[in-house]
Amino acid sequence: MAKKLVKRSENYSEWYNELVVKADLAENSAVRGCMVIKPYGYAIWEKIQRILDDFFKETGHQNAYFPIFIPKSYFEKEAEHVEGFAKECAVVTHHRLKPKENNEKGLECDPNAKLEEELIVRPTSETIIWDTYRGWVQSYRDLPILCNQWANVVRWEMRTRMFLRTAEFLWQEGHTAHATSEEAIEETKKMLDVYAHFAQKFMAMPVIKGVKSPNERFAGAIDTYCIEAMMQDGKALQAGTSHFLGQNFARAFDVKFLSKENKLEYVWATSWGVSTRLMGALIMSHSDDNGLVLPPKLAPLQVVIIPIYKTDEEFEMINNEADKIISFLKSRGISVKYDDRKEYSAGWKFNEYELKGVPIRITLGARDLKEGLVEVARRDNLTKETISVDKVNEYTENLLEEIQKNLFNRALSFRQTNTRKVNSWEEFLVEIEKGGFLLCHWDGTPETEEKIKELTKATIRCIPLEGEEEEGKCVYSGKKSNKRVVFARSY
Amino acid sequence: MAKKLVKRSENYSEWYNELVVKADLAENSAVRGCMVIKPYGYAIWEKIQRILDDFFKETGHQNAYFPIFIPKSYFEKEAEHVEGFAKECAVVTHHRLKPKENNEKGLECDPNAKLEEELIVRPTSETIIWDTYRGWVQSYRDLPILCNQWANVVRWEMRTRMFLRTAEFLWQEGHTAHATSEEAIEETKKMLDVYAHFAQKFMAMPVIKGVKSPNERFAGAIDTYCIEAMMQDGKALQAGTSHFLGQNFARAFDVKFLSKENKLEYVWATSWGVSTRLMGALIMSHSDDNGLVLPPKLAPLQVVIIPIYKTDEEFEMINNEADKIISFLKSRGISVKYDDRKEYSAGWKFNEYELKGVPIRITLGARDLKEGLVEVARRDNLTKETISVDKVNEYTENLLEEIQKNLFNRALSFRQTNTRKVNSWEEFLVEIEKGGFLLCHWDGTPETEEKIKELTKATIRCIPLEGEEEEGKCVYSGKKSNKRVVFARSY
Repeated sequence: MAKKLVKRSENYSEWYNELVVKADLAENSAVRGCMVIKPYGYAIWEKIQRILDDFFKETGHQNAYFPIFIPKSYFEKEAEHVEGFAKECAVVTHHRLKPKENNEKGLECDPNAKLEEELIVRPTSETIIWDTYRGWVQSYRDLPILCNQWANVVRWEMRTRMFLRTAEFLWQEGHTAHATSEEAIEETKKMLDVYAHFAQKFMAMPVIKGVKSPNERFAGAIDTYCIEAMMQDGKALQAGTSHFLGQNFARAFDVKFLSKENKLEYVWATSWGVSTRLMGALIMSHSDDNGLVLPPKLAPLQVVIIPIYKTDEEFEMINNEADKIISFLKSRGISVKYDDRKEYSAGWKFNEYELKGVPIRITLGARDLKEGLVEVARRDNLTKETISVDKVNEYTENLLEEIQKNLFNRALSFRQTNTRKVNSWEEFLVEIEKGGFLLCHWDGTPETEEKIKELTKATIRCIPLEGEEEEGKCVYSGKKSNKRVVFARSY
Repeated sequence: MAKKLVKRSENYSEWYNELVVKADLAENSAVRGCMVIKPYGYAIWEKIQRILDDFFKETGHQNAYFPIFIPKSYFEKEAEHVEGFAKECAVVTHHRLKPKENNEKGLECDPNAKLEEELIVRPTSETIIWDTYRGWVQSYRDLPILCNQWANVVRWEMRTRMFLRTAEFLWQEGHTAHATSEEAIEETKKMLDVYAHFAQKFMAMPVIKGVKSPNERFAGAIDTYCIEAMMQDGKALQAGTSHFLGQNFARAFDVKFLSKENKLEYVWATSWGVSTRLMGALIMSHSDDNGLVLPPKLAPLQVVIIPIYKTDEEFEMINNEADKIISFLKSRGISVKYDDRKEYSAGWKFNEYELKGVPIRITLGARDLKEGLVEVARRDNLTKETISVDKVNEYTENLLEEIQKNLFNRALSFRQTNTRKVNSWEEFLVEIEKGGFLLCHWDGTPETEEKIKELTKATIRCIPLEGEEEEGKCVYSGKKSNKRVVFARSY
């Protein structure tokens, strides 16, 4: 199989598509817009799940599971939500197939099995969950409810790309219920922090925490907080969102509680989620023209050891050395594989693990080893070191940390280089074509944002939480503004 | 809330339904046949998942994810499979809703968004997976493929009961591909052993391993292996199945490989699964009229500590003691909760944890403690011991193991008591009314099995793998038979 990828500089989009397939992460299925996540890709997703799930539990959340189907009428209850979610979706109308009539081959919907009310395959679960919460809440003692769900969801997207935008995707959705607005806002921000921490410390992906402008807000939310990352083509990718939903869903589904003051009040809500889209973000943050590059903390395989030898004696000597290294690395919780398969050449293996982004490759060559040396290659910057075999354990362990840091710093420096303050519309038109993040003043109106999007395809990715106040004039309208926002083209 | 349950002896079925709801395991949702799995129930399912997943990985399997939707035509490709699975199912026919016309309120399917081919929400994934495997297999070097998927599936059941039979349920489905029939059969049996080991060692539920009769076989399988358990009402529950699929799906989806001998051959298949039905089996194996009884290895909370005191000084003394016990138990990986909430009485707490099946309750009473004593109550047999406080750590740790064993032995002895050899049809008619397993000779024909089912509602649960050969006559037809099979009414 031709493993060589198109270069990023030639066709970034094609490079991504090829990489996903050739690194065995996923493939398109026969079902329009749905992907198959292959074992290697799924192993990365499992690592993401496990780490996030631990964070959710540490912050007091429990997992639960709600039905995949949502009655059509539920979407009609929250006016904005219906606009955002009940349009392009998978609609179940029948519950039975029957053999075709008139001796034709095949199956057809049984007209006697038409559902009274259509069911929607969940695009998100606020409605069914808030319908359920009504039964769980009577008094303030029943609050907060801190639930999370790991699930599949379906949004009938017109243009799909593996991991980035698929009809079916996997995600987690947290749905919490609180007695006060303050507590709900605090929860919204807390989960945003969890996402940012995960993105930066585990995915090695720097993110900007911010709030969405009204145009980009979740349908039904009062405020949508987000983390935004910059991909290697300079486009923005929204990597996670946390919504303060106010009392909108409690009103729509009549979820009230008796407060400490004995008053009947509507419950306050949040929801927050990340999805298999993170896989796309991970791939595009670090990978290069040779293939996938994975941060050690999310790599299913962190170290691979490859023997090079001619004689059986040499192979045995190498095996002995490999055993020692493996048992040390395993004792440190490092995942390691010894690829001693004879049907593949060392060169083939080098390419294979490079393509799959294994952070460290240790080559045990018979000649080197006789001189007490081994070669350690790092995937992040493609450099190699020849080191003394008695230092390899410690060296490898430290190198994993070093690579994790280096990937983050490299991505951060890339983002910094590609983030610019822009003060005039003329400048904006030039700079947006170069890609990257433009820090601009904005007059705060949806009309201006809409206009800028129409003219340049750039949107406000977020109003950064940490941006400093600064007097200025809107880059488009010239009206007053007191903070810069992040404009970019996005995935 | 009234926590008291209907008694098993009064109405077993109602006891089960009430227990599921009152122990906070699950509840019915607004969507017909779909349940909400509540956090406490889901925590048990997560334990089941984690343990099984570790076993799957130890036996060389990897997880992957395949689309939830299956094109209608896929079901038409395997003749028996379509009979079994493409009937009562959720059929997606449209991909868009639109506002109703004529100023009516609400949404309706957009006739312009009718799918060319209907999509079925997967009832099981053999078809979509074998369609995918076609692209993964060229030569014997690509085999075996050992994949598992954790997913939701939908079967439009007419009568549903939480966990036991729901329209949507959660499960894992393993799908493996092999170069030889022998290897596939070995895999089928290996996974049956994994299920049996899990059921007995973790669920404390004795099972009979066996093969299904043709009537009860999975649609599309050559052989279906199963584990069967006896519930407390004497009914059988199929707790897991492992199918040898032969080359049926490879033929239907044209999956061939080049063998070592350079011949093009069809690939051999297995599939195997367990579902949230195991939750129903777990509940019905051990629970009693006071509520849930959980084996320690699957209990989300293994030990609860409850203080009883009058003064602040007493409370402080108890807190100190609790701290010591907690830190010991945690160091041993035992999950423990100290319920020192003041808004609930000790009596309320006793009932609550009894209802929820927490295996051990330690009561720290001020009066006892002053004499160096604590009370340890076990949930399985509802007995209490007063023991010296300096022995409580070791005692508790050992008691968890003791409870695990006791639950298994109790269930095994129940099954033995309710399993009888039956040799005549008159006897059969009497004995089947008493419930339990009847070991009978059977002439091996589907007609006889069908007739017995029609007359008594009993079916062959399995032909036990470990049953000895024995000459005899079919309990119904009187024809020759050389092995007894297990007849029972079942869930």
